[in-house]
Amino acid sequence: MDGVRGALPQTGIGLDVHAFAPEGEAVPLWLAGLFWPGECGLTGHSDGDPVAHAAADALFSAAGLGDLGTHFGTDRPEFKGASGATLLAHASRIVRAAGFEIGNIAIQLVGNKPKFAPRREEAQQALSAAAGAPVSISATTSDALGFTGRGEGIAAIATALICRVE
Amino acid sequence: MDGVRGALPQTGIGLDVHAFAPEGEAVPLWLAGLFWPGECGLTGHSDGDPVAHAAADALFSAAGLGDLGTHFGTDRPEFKGASGATLLAHASRIVRAAGFEIGNIAIQLVGNKPKFAPRREEAQQALSAAAGAPVSISATTSDALGFTGRGEGIAAIATALICRVE
Amino acid sequence: MDGVRGALPQTGIGLDVHAFAPEGEAVPLWLAGLFWPGECGLTGHSDGDPVAHAAADALFSAAGLGDLGTHFGTDRPEFKGASGATLLAHASRIVRAAGFEIGNIAIQLVGNKPKFAPRREEAQQALSAAAGAPVSISATTSDALGFTGRGEGIAAIATALICRVE
Repeated sequence: MDGVRGALPQTGIGLDVHAFAPEGEAVPLWLAGLFWPGECGLTGHSDGDPVAHAAADALFSAAGLGDLGTHFGTDRPEFKGASGATLLAHASRIVRAAGFEIGNIAIQLVGNKPKFAPRREEAQQALSAAAGAPVSISATTSDALGFTGRGEGIAAIATALICRVE
Repeated sequence: MDGVRGALPQTGIGLDVHAFAPEGEAVPLWLAGLFWPGECGLTGHSDGDPVAHAAADALFSAAGLGDLGTHFGTDRPEFKGASGATLLAHASRIVRAAGFEIGNIAIQLVGNKPKFAPRREEAQQALSAAAGAPVSISATTSDALGFTGRGEGIAAIATALICRVE
Repeated sequence: MDGVRGALPQTGIGLDVHAFAPEGEAVPLWLAGLFWPGECGLTGHSDGDPVAHAAADALFSAAGLGDLGTHFGTDRPEFKGASGATLLAHASRIVRAAGFEIGNIAIQLVGNKPKFAPRREEAQQALSAAAGAPVSISATTSDALGFTGRGEGIAAIATALICRVE
């Protein structure tokens, strides 16, 4: 049984949510590793990038290494304001140092704005560079339902596949 | 590293949500590739089938080929009103044409109605035929919480595993 | 094609949600296979453990064997009040009896309380023992948004990787 399992890759999952900053607060939007000029920003201990955070959490989840709070929590002031791409790069290093190679990371953004499709390729390149592995990003809305549908925030859900390296 | 990664399958994720049509509007319900007589329908550019759409998005996500909007968006009027099974079949063709084989697709429906279990096998057969690969469908509720719990709509979440073919 | 697919593992997904019991009802909290003294409990036909239930549903989803309702539904009174760990152990046996080995299960808890990190290792050990396979558990909040953000309940989302054994 261990022989079968030892040859298998491992899967992980990550969900992250950040609320839009209150109107009138000039918070910049960082999303999927990119800066979005003129768009309403998201709140968070870090830059509030749910796409990059979900990706990092999916990696930790696949490796059984905890989560963002374990590695970058509020008790780690050096990560306060860190970019999502920086956190994803750190997460990738931690997962590799634990003996895994990253196969791929796939993330879906759920939200009404900003319009994501025109910058999808650019975002994929930014996060793939951060992870050192292929990252795909897709987007959808929740058909005006729930907190994403009311425009209160953005959610992202990710899965990752990693493999233990001999 | 590329050697390890090249031998790995790729994982993807897809979430889709559609709202129930307003009461009094005689919208047919299409869900998980099946017609549900006498049930309240869902809204959407297409037939509003969140199960089939989440499956298609999970395939695109795994392959890094964008999402439903990339391939079947409102700028593609030929897909207006297309069935979810048709979109899933198209998505499968696109993913195979890009050099992948589809391992499996797994989808979970989240909603209060219709009662899904009696037609689960039939739905799995319909979507497996559309994808040309094994599709599993499960169902749950959100314990009366959130928009699915209030009966405002149906959500579906999917994962897919695909493999690059030599 | 069947040759390629036959060599691939299968992925599955599971989401589960349980609402907190009304204030004043002395319901114990069981979460991620552990008892949490002094914490507000969750409602449910069973012990209401969304982490263990999402894990079991991800296994059934990967194997194409239905869902919790198929195997442990309200028509199975012997499972009324069963612990989440018991259900996960049963689910693992069912999936193995159908010819699969379990690679890994990864679950993320979404909720405001209880504080999960201090008992993460203990919870992972409890559910790994139940499943007979590596189970990773991570946790996040939804940034005060949605039903989890309002503290109405706890959600858990899981993915599993399994492999058909020759």
